[in-house]
Amino acid sequence: MSQQTKPLRNVLFIMADQLRWDYLACAGHPHIRTPHIDALAARGVRFTNAFVQGPVCGASRMSTYTGRYVTSHGSAWNFVPLSVAQKTLGDHLQPHGVRCAVVGKTHVEADTEGAVRLGINPDTDPGRLVMHGGFEPYERDDGIWPPGFKVEDNRYCDYLRSQGYSGDNPWHDFANSSMGEDGKLHSGWQMRWAAESARVAQEHSETPYMTRRAMDFITEQGEQPWVLHLSYIKPHWPYVAPAPYHAMYGPEDVQPAQKTQGEKADPHPVYRGFMNNTPSTTFSRDEVRETVIPTYMGLITQIDDQICQLMEFLRETGRDQDTLIVFTSDHGDYLGDHWMGEKELFHDVIVKVPMIIVDPRPQADGTRGQACDAIVESIDLAPTFLSSLGHMPPREWLEGESLESLLHDRQGEWQKDMAVCENTFAFRDSVRLPIGAPVDRCNMTMVRTNEWKYVHIDGLRPMLFDLVNDPQEFQDLGASPDHAGVREQMQRRLLDWLFCRRRTIGITPEGIQTWNTRELKAGIDIGVW
Amino acid sequence: MSQQTKPLRNVLFIMADQLRWDYLACAGHPHIRTPHIDALAARGVRFTNAFVQGPVCGASRMSTYTGRYVTSHGSAWNFVPLSVAQKTLGDHLQPHGVRCAVVGKTHVEADTEGAVRLGINPDTDPGRLVMHGGFEPYERDDGIWPPGFKVEDNRYCDYLRSQGYSGDNPWHDFANSSMGEDGKLHSGWQMRWAAESARVAQEHSETPYMTRRAMDFITEQGEQPWVLHLSYIKPHWPYVAPAPYHAMYGPEDVQPAQKTQGEKADPHPVYRGFMNNTPSTTFSRDEVRETVIPTYMGLITQIDDQICQLMEFLRETGRDQDTLIVFTSDHGDYLGDHWMGEKELFHDVIVKVPMIIVDPRPQADGTRGQACDAIVESIDLAPTFLSSLGHMPPREWLEGESLESLLHDRQGEWQKDMAVCENTFAFRDSVRLPIGAPVDRCNMTMVRTNEWKYVHIDGLRPMLFDLVNDPQEFQDLGASPDHAGVREQMQRRLLDWLFCRRRTIGITPEGIQTWNTRELKAGIDIGVW
Repeated sequence: MSQQTKPLRNVLFIMADQLRWDYLACAGHPHIRTPHIDALAARGVRFTNAFVQGPVCGASRMSTYTGRYVTSHGSAWNFVPLSVAQKTLGDHLQPHGVRCAVVGKTHVEADTEGAVRLGINPDTDPGRLVMHGGFEPYERDDGIWPPGFKVEDNRYCDYLRSQGYSGDNPWHDFANSSMGEDGKLHSGWQMRWAAESARVAQEHSETPYMTRRAMDFITEQGEQPWVLHLSYIKPHWPYVAPAPYHAMYGPEDVQPAQKTQGEKADPHPVYRGFMNNTPSTTFSRDEVRETVIPTYMGLITQIDDQICQLMEFLRETGRDQDTLIVFTSDHGDYLGDHWMGEKELFHDVIVKVPMIIVDPRPQADGTRGQACDAIVESIDLAPTFLSSLGHMPPREWLEGESLESLLHDRQGEWQKDMAVCENTFAFRDSVRLPIGAPVDRCNMTMVRTNEWKYVHIDGLRPMLFDLVNDPQEFQDLGASPDHAGVREQMQRRLLDWLFCRRRTIGITPEGIQTWNTRELKAGIDIGVW
Repeated sequence: MSQQTKPLRNVLFIMADQLRWDYLACAGHPHIRTPHIDALAARGVRFTNAFVQGPVCGASRMSTYTGRYVTSHGSAWNFVPLSVAQKTLGDHLQPHGVRCAVVGKTHVEADTEGAVRLGINPDTDPGRLVMHGGFEPYERDDGIWPPGFKVEDNRYCDYLRSQGYSGDNPWHDFANSSMGEDGKLHSGWQMRWAAESARVAQEHSETPYMTRRAMDFITEQGEQPWVLHLSYIKPHWPYVAPAPYHAMYGPEDVQPAQKTQGEKADPHPVYRGFMNNTPSTTFSRDEVRETVIPTYMGLITQIDDQICQLMEFLRETGRDQDTLIVFTSDHGDYLGDHWMGEKELFHDVIVKVPMIIVDPRPQADGTRGQACDAIVESIDLAPTFLSSLGHMPPREWLEGESLESLLHDRQGEWQKDMAVCENTFAFRDSVRLPIGAPVDRCNMTMVRTNEWKYVHIDGLRPMLFDLVNDPQEFQDLGASPDHAGVREQMQRRLLDWLFCRRRTIGITPEGIQTWNTRELKAGIDIGVW
């Protein structure tokens, strides 16, 4: 961090859920309209090789929020608790007096067992922060309610009821359902209705609501420093959009599925298991893609329209001058590519995410509007936020690197050449049972360079893709005799990475370095005659 | 666990610190007298291939107390805090109403930062247990005080003062020092005085004192179930023994140092660094070994005499009928072998430990008096204690296996064929600085089968020993071209082990297995048309 670089005051950390990297106009999508997100890219840096550390919501977000790999924080899948011992972005900001809050989804599963065992009170800080992964729950809403569930203590549902959308679950019945011509409720849980409009006016739907709540928070903060995680749940399913977004796009805007027959010939057992599950078989049908994807696109354009509102608000309040703006996603969506639906494996359509960062400071002028192809990871965000606000990222906790060097045109300082992403198939019977693996032998870890994507799978052969000659990842070379050497090299990179994970908490590098001196000062000299 | 096996009520878990596996008569030492420990072996099983998971006190004990590998609990070296999130033996026993206490040393470094951050009160349970690694501190004493240090709030020092040994630090001045003929105090910190008697009567020294406190605890418990960790600090330095133990052995009883000139020719850089430190250079002198080792041996015989007292007490109280008795150590002591002093590397004289288990139940009659050469680890103790008391070891936490199958003559069930031990040289400047490694790139991990000992070292070549042809580990094959294949195999075993470490806490295997059912029951069906 340059001595003369004046720190910023705030960070606006925007995340859209399940937003693919290639569903932005600035990323090259030929049909989608995202002028305001594009404008962010024009004002800042668009990272074209940004990767998440987990290919599912929970693991990805816990890594981003802790700045640590999955193997280091242990919250390995959705609904796996984040241990009370794991420090989060909020914990690192708190001593500096920076208010760190969330509007929207975090997907943090509180370590209730740990809290109970240790006598931590979940209703007051610090326990409350622990329950929410370090974010003050200004408007925390993970927002997925099953049909028929009576939703209580949820502000968004209360808001909908106040707007006249009544009932036990207005989130489902109005914001995420449509009405058939026969007067029957069409649940957004069934994708066949995805092309119909949601039963809320667009301004009452989730994305604008959360945007307004974000503006409320920023207004309240005034001149006090803040980090706000504005975490939209769309375009994650249910794939339902309010008018006019439901009809903004049509089948003519849908890109062909990226898949080949070769992928289905003798696939890796894990891949086969996922290809055979419900989302994958559903999305293998053109009819499904042509119904769902236009709505997926509409939801993205709705987010883009809200980004427009938000950026105008930042300009009006002067916050555009002292705020780092980050726009990203937690993972992608197969949408039928590679014969898959949903997520959980490691193709780039899942693990590569949009990442656009606008740093208003003069040091970032040299990179405005540029695309940066350095390999970066979502765990680099936490150290970036801290260093941008003028604070040292604690290296005994954070495993990523601050992106400031890349934002400030010092690309030579960037050393990372490999991204890691981890998952487990333990929770997916359709994969695990045919393989016969016990639940504690289901780990999968991707290590990806610019040339190779290697996926190590416990107890089974790996997967391997030649990203130079097969950038679309259609040919798994995991069993190719000609590629044994490459697999060994990548396996060695995996081992090297795994071997030096930071598990020793509570001791700073400085503490370690001065150990010998302190021991002698205490008068304890071992092994002297 | 057999259905008909009646559980035991208590566990007496005895540990001596820095006691080598080969310094017992029943292990083959030609001179040392340990008839009562031998008698334990004759009543139970003596494990001849038992290995610790860390070659230093802290890491080894934290692994034993949590039942987890170092890489999983994160307390990687001495004085590195054990995270508040790590469940210990005490935590696993507590729901079953078993009182789990310590008399003596645990070396637990409390995660004070974590406790403060989470608002955990260290003065009342559960915080108090967290501060002590899950052991009620009935008489917790890590017992190493520098000379000149004013010791307060220490029961043993108060006891010494009550016996007339006065001053700020009677532990040092009396129990661990001798008196020169010139009337000068000879500090036990200087090994040149090791052959002189300590300035306490033997009954006032640490080992008998702790033994009496253990008997106090057992008496208090009456018929209530307990697990007692009786953790002697001897024969760990200072190498000072009270009469008659200081003179019980002499230079004639000292075994020649196990070392060769070949070890000093082009040693591994880490080995070289340790060989050049103070304890190693000191112990390379015969004079030092001949002064210190007889005292080391005397301290062991003193422990043995106390074991005699303890076992008589158990018989008198009937506790020998319902108590599992375990005798072990946390690691060994180089004592000049391999040109080394102290510990920290992975030769068997460090990582192999005595492990004797007496199970009084009839199911164990078939193995009484036997030596068992199965590879077992100290992390197997926690599950053994739980299952012996009739409780299921929680597999989402514990990484070892119950030894009951081996105690109960069901050796065919034992599958472990590899032991793991982990350390870091980050804290040792004499090793790290010449190498130039940053403090977070200093990990070392041993994987040991019956045939090979492989030590993987971050950023450097490994070490490798052929245990069949070179059981004394004199020849490091880590750079031998002929052994590249073996190193690859062992590296693969390391990767396989590391890749499936249990980091996902808070979710039981049963919870994972039923995930799919629960999700569907909640009404959330993803990816349906």
